[in-house]
Amino acid sequence: MRAAGVVKTSHHEKFFANLDAEAALDDIRPIEWLDGKIRLLDQTRLPHEEVYLTLDDYQQLAAAISELQVRGAPLIGIAAAYGLALAGETAAATDREGFLAEVRAAAEVLAATRPTAVNLSWALGRLLSAAEQAPDVAAARHALVTEALRIHQEDAGAQEQLSRHGAPLLPTGGAVLTICNTGALATGGRGTALGVIRAAWEEGRLSRVYVCETRPLLQGARLTAWELRRLEIPHTLIVDSAAGTLLRRGGVGCVIVGADRIAANGDVANKIGTYPLAVLAREHEVPFYVAAPTSSIDLSVPSGDEIPIEERPPAEVTSFAGVATAPEGTAALNPAFDVTPHEYIAAIITERGLARDPYGESLSALRGVAAR
Amino acid sequence: MRAAGVVKTSHHEKFFANLDAEAALDDIRPIEWLDGKIRLLDQTRLPHEEVYLTLDDYQQLAAAISELQVRGAPLIGIAAAYGLALAGETAAATDREGFLAEVRAAAEVLAATRPTAVNLSWALGRLLSAAEQAPDVAAARHALVTEALRIHQEDAGAQEQLSRHGAPLLPTGGAVLTICNTGALATGGRGTALGVIRAAWEEGRLSRVYVCETRPLLQGARLTAWELRRLEIPHTLIVDSAAGTLLRRGGVGCVIVGADRIAANGDVANKIGTYPLAVLAREHEVPFYVAAPTSSIDLSVPSGDEIPIEERPPAEVTSFAGVATAPEGTAALNPAFDVTPHEYIAAIITERGLARDPYGESLSALRGVAAR
Repeated sequence: MRAAGVVKTSHHEKFFANLDAEAALDDIRPIEWLDGKIRLLDQTRLPHEEVYLTLDDYQQLAAAISELQVRGAPLIGIAAAYGLALAGETAAATDREGFLAEVRAAAEVLAATRPTAVNLSWALGRLLSAAEQAPDVAAARHALVTEALRIHQEDAGAQEQLSRHGAPLLPTGGAVLTICNTGALATGGRGTALGVIRAAWEEGRLSRVYVCETRPLLQGARLTAWELRRLEIPHTLIVDSAAGTLLRRGGVGCVIVGADRIAANGDVANKIGTYPLAVLAREHEVPFYVAAPTSSIDLSVPSGDEIPIEERPPAEVTSFAGVATAPEGTAALNPAFDVTPHEYIAAIITERGLARDPYGESLSALRGVAAR
Repeated sequence: MRAAGVVKTSHHEKFFANLDAEAALDDIRPIEWLDGKIRLLDQTRLPHEEVYLTLDDYQQLAAAISELQVRGAPLIGIAAAYGLALAGETAAATDREGFLAEVRAAAEVLAATRPTAVNLSWALGRLLSAAEQAPDVAAARHALVTEALRIHQEDAGAQEQLSRHGAPLLPTGGAVLTICNTGALATGGRGTALGVIRAAWEEGRLSRVYVCETRPLLQGARLTAWELRRLEIPHTLIVDSAAGTLLRRGGVGCVIVGADRIAANGDVANKIGTYPLAVLAREHEVPFYVAAPTSSIDLSVPSGDEIPIEERPPAEVTSFAGVATAPEGTAALNPAFDVTPHEYIAAIITERGLARDPYGESLSALRGVAAR
């Protein structure tokens, strides 16, 4: 299941032909490596317009990550990998050391785009390592593209696997609650939390998905509702602050979310608003699950307190769709993520199985499998 | 301190001249009785435009309540009272019974505008009772206006009193967190929760106010930020779902909110998102206070489960400022309020003092004082 060596237009066709048809997730392709360029779906334009951008410069890709044209922890990893492959394609150096220096500089630019999702540095590390093992520029350039395609392909496989592991946890005949977007638009495959939801739906066991709109950038309203509509899975949108009422009224069987980074002790950084859902879920004795590929686990970070949390521009809070929501000059705090302590989490669903309390041992064991 | 009998332009001047200058809250006058008409600030246009509407028909006023041009539980009560006074002004009947029948029909229209805030039916009840005691049409018409002005004036006084009772509870040198708008725009005076906050600020004890933006209609971003700016009180806006992170980071001394209806057992219906704040506050051992005039207490409702919760149009969730946020046709649930069980509430601050657990006894005692 390795991608072929020639980096041409045919690559992406071969890549998707190799994938399980389900894992390719119909026709949603948020990012593709195409003829030595990157083609990506501009997610800031969804749900109203499906606009594809073709990028031939890694700095454009870095900007696309910063501006959330491409987002979702697993997809950020894939995008950064393609970005570094692009840096390899366009590097001017003809000697190996000069080439690697250019690529390392590009990796630093890409790594600095967003601090929280660990998949970004994880993917860049894999590509740099692959390039460094190559004997010359041509081989290093080739290795970068091959490794990026492999990361994309592996992620699609991981989503497929974790969906199967997670689906049995979801309530039979019940409804689930989720936040942000964790589907095909956020990953290289069918999705993390939304992948599990889709698998449970396909097994005929799910009645409805409640979707938090996910302020400030509304990934739930704009992206998750868009995906669920295409998948014809019944769904209802709520404002984030209505989750308490929804859980209090009953009828929600579990809460399931994705992750941007999982610390060694099982603490989870995810989209702002996740932690309140975890607290409310426990208050109402509803299980709270996290679904993520093992590439989102960072054993070098002991707990959630050490995960860097991205602070985004206040204007995302004080305006919406170009319309100011607050008086001009209003100060705002805009942390893009929060940390959910592991004690609120019933299980972390990965492609290698479930991690449960005690998470320290459980996650190490899963990563141990990964390291083999 | 009773309003004079002649219902003319000079009335509102006299009314506000009678009020404590502080209670009149500078120049924010969200509603006024003016020359036999109602002048109101269209709150849906804030913070960008200060547009005043002049209404000469109670049905216009009913529409203004439904559309949230005038909102906030105490102010809804005042608005409904002026609406019924307007119905009296425009009633065609020349006989007492015919007049009262017209006024009762108008009261039903006004009562049906919004179901949750009890101040609405409470104020209408007071006006109907006053009109019914009048011997003829002229006296009944006059009684309606007088009682409406009295309710407005009493509410301003109540806000002044409850602000003084509540201020000592707020943390010295600390920050507080609030939701929705509970200030001069929501009441006849300086406000409930925001009145307490203002009093604590004036005593030099408060460092900052964190304001939840309050989706879907953004009363926090649009209205509370606008008031705090005018009052020059330092404030920071957050998306509603960032409250968990804010409380987890520490530095918030208490959460303080208003109320739309308080049940006999102390359960509180308030803006959607209040209940999650209460749960998070308890999780972080931060006191959670409710500030409301006794006119928001409804002893006829045993618990929060019996408080009717208004469901507003799904379009408020799926769009903002005319811009769709979700794919066309997306289903949404839009409860305007939630219920916070009394066990999460450290104290209810009223103009007659504090209610504390056990709330059943405590609230009855406060209302007993009211009934005397």
